[in-house]
Amino acid sequence: MIYLAEFVGTAILTLLGCGVVAGVTLAHSKAAGGGWIVITFGWGLAVAMAVYTVGQYSGAHINPAVTMGLASIGQMPWSQVPGYIAAQIAGGCFGSVIVYLAYLRHWRETPDAETKLGVFSTIPAVRSIGANFLTEVIGTFMLIFGILGINANMNPLGNIQDGTLADLFGTGFAPLLVGFLVLAIGLSLGGPTGYAINPARDLGPRIAHALLPIPGKGGSDWSYAWVPIVAPIIGGVLAAQTFVLLGFTV
Amino acid sequence: MIYLAEFVGTAILTLLGCGVVAGVTLAHSKAAGGGWIVITFGWGLAVAMAVYTVGQYSGAHINPAVTMGLASIGQMPWSQVPGYIAAQIAGGCFGSVIVYLAYLRHWRETPDAETKLGVFSTIPAVRSIGANFLTEVIGTFMLIFGILGINANMNPLGNIQDGTLADLFGTGFAPLLVGFLVLAIGLSLGGPTGYAINPARDLGPRIAHALLPIPGKGGSDWSYAWVPIVAPIIGGVLAAQTFVLLGFTV
Amino acid sequence: MIYLAEFVGTAILTLLGCGVVAGVTLAHSKAAGGGWIVITFGWGLAVAMAVYTVGQYSGAHINPAVTMGLASIGQMPWSQVPGYIAAQIAGGCFGSVIVYLAYLRHWRETPDAETKLGVFSTIPAVRSIGANFLTEVIGTFMLIFGILGINANMNPLGNIQDGTLADLFGTGFAPLLVGFLVLAIGLSLGGPTGYAINPARDLGPRIAHALLPIPGKGGSDWSYAWVPIVAPIIGGVLAAQTFVLLGFTV
Amino acid sequence: MIYLAEFVGTAILTLLGCGVVAGVTLAHSKAAGGGWIVITFGWGLAVAMAVYTVGQYSGAHINPAVTMGLASIGQMPWSQVPGYIAAQIAGGCFGSVIVYLAYLRHWRETPDAETKLGVFSTIPAVRSIGANFLTEVIGTFMLIFGILGINANMNPLGNIQDGTLADLFGTGFAPLLVGFLVLAIGLSLGGPTGYAINPARDLGPRIAHALLPIPGKGGSDWSYAWVPIVAPIIGGVLAAQTFVLLGFTV
Repeated sequence: MIYLAEFVGTAILTLLGCGVVAGVTLAHSKAAGGGWIVITFGWGLAVAMAVYTVGQYSGAHINPAVTMGLASIGQMPWSQVPGYIAAQIAGGCFGSVIVYLAYLRHWRETPDAETKLGVFSTIPAVRSIGANFLTEVIGTFMLIFGILGINANMNPLGNIQDGTLADLFGTGFAPLLVGFLVLAIGLSLGGPTGYAINPARDLGPRIAHALLPIPGKGGSDWSYAWVPIVAPIIGGVLAAQTFVLLGFTV
Repeated sequence: MIYLAEFVGTAILTLLGCGVVAGVTLAHSKAAGGGWIVITFGWGLAVAMAVYTVGQYSGAHINPAVTMGLASIGQMPWSQVPGYIAAQIAGGCFGSVIVYLAYLRHWRETPDAETKLGVFSTIPAVRSIGANFLTEVIGTFMLIFGILGINANMNPLGNIQDGTLADLFGTGFAPLLVGFLVLAIGLSLGGPTGYAINPARDLGPRIAHALLPIPGKGGSDWSYAWVPIVAPIIGGVLAAQTFVLLGFTV
Repeated sequence: MIYLAEFVGTAILTLLGCGVVAGVTLAHSKAAGGGWIVITFGWGLAVAMAVYTVGQYSGAHINPAVTMGLASIGQMPWSQVPGYIAAQIAGGCFGSVIVYLAYLRHWRETPDAETKLGVFSTIPAVRSIGANFLTEVIGTFMLIFGILGINANMNPLGNIQDGTLADLFGTGFAPLLVGFLVLAIGLSLGGPTGYAINPARDLGPRIAHALLPIPGKGGSDWSYAWVPIVAPIIGGVLAAQTFVLLGFTV
Repeated sequence: MIYLAEFVGTAILTLLGCGVVAGVTLAHSKAAGGGWIVITFGWGLAVAMAVYTVGQYSGAHINPAVTMGLASIGQMPWSQVPGYIAAQIAGGCFGSVIVYLAYLRHWRETPDAETKLGVFSTIPAVRSIGANFLTEVIGTFMLIFGILGINANMNPLGNIQDGTLADLFGTGFAPLLVGFLVLAIGLSLGGPTGYAINPARDLGPRIAHALLPIPGKGGSDWSYAWVPIVAPIIGGVLAAQTFVLLGFTV
């Protein structure tokens, strides 16, 4: 059930997340021109809704950077890491396929190929591998550092109460706060790269983009694809290590 | 009381929901040009306020797709379904009549007939029955799937504690989350069809549009009317069935 | 203390409420052009912050329509009504004077006199006493009806537990919901008249506008002033009566 | 740990706060043109996230005006005040350095020097020392008055329960409310000066601006720097004194 939950949660994430990019950028959409506040609220609430729906089963990491970060500080068994990440990538891909279906008639209406790729995967505003990498490390550092802080704040008596990961995140008021954290990161640190801060959110939909019969699509920009995979994992692990190193309670 | 509560709740939904469309689209309104963020927050909060006001009486389904979805998995007695749906459609109609009165002097100021219909009922951005139908199925699937997840998350000990439906939704923190879920769906999946995702929200106001003496109104687009009735019910039942099939706790 | 609390609460309301109109409409303000979402969030949060600050003392009605509505159904002693209302109007006036000071250098920069009046008091988009009156009745009906619903939802065991009005509103999660209710009404029903829905919010600042030495100000539009006084009181009393008549628990 | 917590909290504040200004104003950012709603949500959530992350350790003042205001009414030992303020300024500086890195390639793309300074420190819309000073006093008065009110509302039994400052703010639902309070102040009172309302938020990043090798930067506007230092402290102390003087429970 934990892997199913991660699959479903990440599918909800990209359904609502890639969906809001489609809504704002595809031609003739009623949300066209909604701007950055629509994009960032869409992604923030996508996270919150995914966590509310499946948090009680798997903790709703829905992000390999969260899974790796937690594993690196002993809050997650390494044996489950591969299954979590595989489920997350598959779910991220599946959710974006549903976005393709929901906006079925808008792909041919939209002339620009890069706009179509942008619905699925992140594209840096100014392409510069070093700077883009750094931005993704910083954004994901803030994400995992903030999640650990919110979680400790909400569960002052400790997290792993009966050995199940579901204690970690995923219930009560905390998922909304994690959604607001993602909203905050998007508002503030999303400008340069479009804030992947999650390998599954970027790679899953990129695979979908490569496979789907999207009218007038261009390439899937695979040369950039490793940045939103590697940088978030480094940022996530760095954040978890720093959090523990500084003496904050997990 | 449960039917009265559904009537009042759905009336609040369309008063605040159709109202925000009127505010953003009718001429000389102070909210004119407010954009997609105003529209989607208006509808999201409309749901939340409706549920807070009457949730403790009927569970505040305020949506036949919710009622049918719950009935299909045994969370709602079939004998109450017709009364619920009738009250919802009547309430949806009534709320939009109040919107007509609240914006009384703005109808004649607005030249375009389709803009006036758009206050009451949904109009697809690109008309294509198959694609529009699919979009409404997907949006409503997300709505009912998310409601079931939020509800299970908020009530981990089970819902039907003493046999009253009011246990299901409608109290505490959950109604705000359901409002944010509707906000998220609107932001992300509302672009193609304007997200009816609720037969009563669309049919009730459409009846009002047909009957009210709106200056310079056009037709009520009855040829499209069945899409936002049938597709949401299919999406809602599919979501409830899938939720149970996957093994998630209701 | 209850009258002091109402004074302070209503002053916070108009400081943050009239303040957001100043920010969006006065020349050279950094918030200029922020639009309807900024205006409505500003007023909604103004209510929430006022209620959080003084709700535990007086219930934070901060609105004669709330006070009169509650009194009409026996939830507020009539003997306190005059004091509440006087404190609310004085507080509303005081808060807008602080707005005048906060935006001190922006009045002379702004050429249009009506824009300056609009910071203090509501001005209808299309002037039509009957229609404007009706809009204010509807908006305030929704406000008081929703407040009663939220309050019953949050306090299922009844409100007047130990005889103090502070039980009614003003603590816990409810004030934020009341703020969101005002946000929802602003988004959806604010277009025609700018949603006074509160005599003290309109009359208090109008008095301030008449007395303050605002450079290049015009008249205070006293011929309209009675509409946002009388209509909200009628709407509030109607809502409270209807709520009880329908059998909802206060 | 309390000083470390203040350092980390204020760093999160300026990372997310200065970050949102960078996102909206720097050239080629994906958030460019997001407007006042993006700026104010960014700063409001920056406060909320900072408080959730470190509130359980130091109370998360993250603002010398809060620290001084609390000390002036005996809610904070004077002996800790210098350490708190030093940590806040250092943290504020550090957070803005990370913003510089996150937007590394956007500084050279942006021609205007004042825009770059505006990412770090506040710049008044209409320069007038007296009026700007007054605006900052009013904004910070509202901030500290509101924090005291929210805190009393959320902790009705009194704050200092076991002698630790962490009881004051920083846990549960209150940090989100403080974030919404900052959002409200920004929306409503931010227009004239860009609402520093926090000496550490303004001085720390101004130091960073002076030291960092930002391409095409101009001066750091030190002649204005004392206003967002002195005015917030006066406003904060005035608010705390007034709150107690009026008889409200701390």
